[in-house]
Amino acid sequence: MPAELWRPSLDLALHRNRNNPGLRLVQLATVRPDGRPAIRTVVFRGFLDDTRQLAFSTDGRSAKRAEIAANPGGAVCWYFPETREQFRVTGLLSLVDASTPDPALREARADLWAELSDETRTTFTWPSPGEARDVGRPFPSTPPNRAEPVASFCLMILTATEVDHLELHSSPHHRWQFEADAQGRWSGREVNP
Amino acid sequence: MPAELWRPSLDLALHRNRNNPGLRLVQLATVRPDGRPAIRTVVFRGFLDDTRQLAFSTDGRSAKRAEIAANPGGAVCWYFPETREQFRVTGLLSLVDASTPDPALREARADLWAELSDETRTTFTWPSPGEARDVGRPFPSTPPNRAEPVASFCLMILTATEVDHLELHSSPHHRWQFEADAQGRWSGREVNP
Repeated sequence: MPAELWRPSLDLALHRNRNNPGLRLVQLATVRPDGRPAIRTVVFRGFLDDTRQLAFSTDGRSAKRAEIAANPGGAVCWYFPETREQFRVTGLLSLVDASTPDPALREARADLWAELSDETRTTFTWPSPGEARDVGRPFPSTPPNRAEPVASFCLMILTATEVDHLELHSSPHHRWQFEADAQGRWSGREVNP
Repeated sequence: MPAELWRPSLDLALHRNRNNPGLRLVQLATVRPDGRPAIRTVVFRGFLDDTRQLAFSTDGRSAKRAEIAANPGGAVCWYFPETREQFRVTGLLSLVDASTPDPALREARADLWAELSDETRTTFTWPSPGEARDVGRPFPSTPPNRAEPVASFCLMILTATEVDHLELHSSPHHRWQFEADAQGRWSGREVNP
């Protein structure tokens, strides 16, 4: 059983909503270097061996890199319409790319690259995201090598430090907050919804 | 036709996805007073007469009030699975409550209060959200007066200053960015997805 008190609830919600095709899509909030919030949809790629680490893929050329360098805070939110539950996971973001020395993280990055669809892998060879579109410049359509992540491909990790779980299917609603201390030990309490 | 260049695209997406029950649910990102991001699901209540202002309801006792007071930046994100489109709307948040002097805003707040379901109106009479749950304290179940907003009820307005529209249904994808200048005039450009 994981030390994360909130994992059983989130795992159960992911299981109960497994027929929802949007299940793997979550929204990620970050803070821009100028202090304003940013938000976008990301694909949840599961947990790493460390049970409080959520995995995503991202393009190292996107605005997220500068945002994370200036402020590593990140927060994702799931809303499950069928079970009327919301999970908010707040923590610290880090990027794993070709320059990362840790062998386990390098392997996790290579594994995620291999799991992606050819269509998704190809997007990492497109011109830099967010730059002005040059209609004369071609967008490659040949998938890159599945065995070799391209330089722009990053594994993005959210290491959870706080979780807020809201259940709306009863009245009154129920809400729990979980928090990790500096040693990574979790505690939880029920709060007003 | 509104001066907001992005409104026709968003209005069309909302129309095309009108059979999706989750359509009105968007995620809102803010920045906490300690500089970390926050995110939660909110119900989109439509546009105000000012065509760049998005309306939401919120409880004035929630953490959002202190967040907005410290940093009025806000960003919402829609992802429409059926049309494979994402809209990110960034701007400034403001709250309208019983102390707001502007008559038009007071009326907009009263109108939104009257539109809510009895079930939603009742939640504004519950104990303060986010505080430790006291199991001995009852949660009122009688709906408050539809003609008189309770003190905790706020109209929350997001005044858009930037919009990012991503279309994933073609390959390569398409992405547009729109920005308002200090006079509220919008410009747009296509960027790499």
